[in-house]
Amino acid sequence: MIGTSGAVHDGHLSLVRASAAVNDVSVVFWAGGGRFDWVDSERKYQRDYDRDASLVASAGAGIIFAPSNEELFPRPPLTQVRLPHLSTGVPGLEDPAHLDLIAMVIAKLRNIFGPCRSYFGEKDWQQLTMFQRLAEDLCSPVEAVACPTIRHHDGLAMSSRNAQLSPTERAAAPALYHGLSAARAAIVDGERDAVALSSHFTDTVRTAAVEYFTAVDAATLTPLEKLEGDVRLLGSIRLGSVRLVDNLGVTVP
Amino acid sequence: MIGTSGAVHDGHLSLVRASAAVNDVSVVFWAGGGRFDWVDSERKYQRDYDRDASLVASAGAGIIFAPSNEELFPRPPLTQVRLPHLSTGVPGLEDPAHLDLIAMVIAKLRNIFGPCRSYFGEKDWQQLTMFQRLAEDLCSPVEAVACPTIRHHDGLAMSSRNAQLSPTERAAAPALYHGLSAARAAIVDGERDAVALSSHFTDTVRTAAVEYFTAVDAATLTPLEKLEGDVRLLGSIRLGSVRLVDNLGVTVP
Repeated sequence: MIGTSGAVHDGHLSLVRASAAVNDVSVVFWAGGGRFDWVDSERKYQRDYDRDASLVASAGAGIIFAPSNEELFPRPPLTQVRLPHLSTGVPGLEDPAHLDLIAMVIAKLRNIFGPCRSYFGEKDWQQLTMFQRLAEDLCSPVEAVACPTIRHHDGLAMSSRNAQLSPTERAAAPALYHGLSAARAAIVDGERDAVALSSHFTDTVRTAAVEYFTAVDAATLTPLEKLEGDVRLLGSIRLGSVRLVDNLGVTVP
Repeated sequence: MIGTSGAVHDGHLSLVRASAAVNDVSVVFWAGGGRFDWVDSERKYQRDYDRDASLVASAGAGIIFAPSNEELFPRPPLTQVRLPHLSTGVPGLEDPAHLDLIAMVIAKLRNIFGPCRSYFGEKDWQQLTMFQRLAEDLCSPVEAVACPTIRHHDGLAMSSRNAQLSPTERAAAPALYHGLSAARAAIVDGERDAVALSSHFTDTVRTAAVEYFTAVDAATLTPLEKLEGDVRLLGSIRLGSVRLVDNLGVTVP
């Protein structure tokens, strides 16, 4: 099972290919049918079902599940599925209300699809961590498979949001990846202090507004003061009205 | 699937028999292995696994699932499954933290057992309503079956808590059922005002401390001012340290 909010790109397709390589049937959940109207969201993607369906089918998807809001939720749910420690415990990360909504939708999809492998990109590290913990906590008969982030040649992580960038913003966008890379290089060179690390990121990301930069424990998302163990560097910048997110991992020996 | 916190009584056994009559295998989840240590609970039941296992097996249970806390939750979960509108929206009803915990455990059990019928007694109406809505909201492959409350000859609903009553308290305990019956009779006789209805309950339950009495919409648990539709009368009294709950239904034409 692979989920997409529409605006399918090569990142999604890499998940479909990873699934098609080892599973009899690969199902794509296409949530482009509209947002769920009981939750506000800042996200407004371009949606083109026919284009997206053709792309995922050619990558190996056998079934596309594209329910309307009314099919998926005949009435607004009273059930909340939340992981507040992972969705709200990290200052500055993604919108908790949105993350809690998709945690609930993922829990529901796992019941609809039954036992399966579920593929997620590492680009949305916070979501990936939540979905893996959700499966563990609820004994979902699901294997949550993490797949590497797919990047453009200039380093920018593929994202549905990239289509909203102006040419000038698009040209500036790789700064996010370069900033994360600079921070990772500093750790490899011996940096162990999280505050000092931030300057490596912000000094590199000069032309864009920094939304956040945080070094966290890769599994728990707990912000680190001293860099040790499996570290995940989470960064976000804003270009015009578009908020881009990306992350890189590094293991401190 | 039938759940019990231990202290098995004829109410539980009626659920096991209802399941055994129509299913190939009936599984009893026996949570008597101790409370989950990250949640406080006022409940302290007598627990005797051998006695309970013998009783449910003789009623038709084929499997008894009695995990330790550590087996069910190798580490404390970060996932919350909550139905705040049903668990906390009704003044005076059961402990929301406890209800949210069991909602999460039920969601987990449904993943462990897979597609099945799940049997619940009407005595815990709030729980029953939550579990039915939980299944609907998350598309659980589960049919939540409601079974009638089983009562002693004097009307007292069977409950694990009854064993904690002193002889004097046990003698006074049927007042809860009599109070609910008086309120129901008043509705049948034409009473449509919820405030006036309360006096029928409290006048009948004179010797015990009233914890709450509420007339709610049977499906949504919304307190009613004007009695109409499917009404559920929820009552609770305290005898010594024991809090008893019970409920009755009536449909207003």
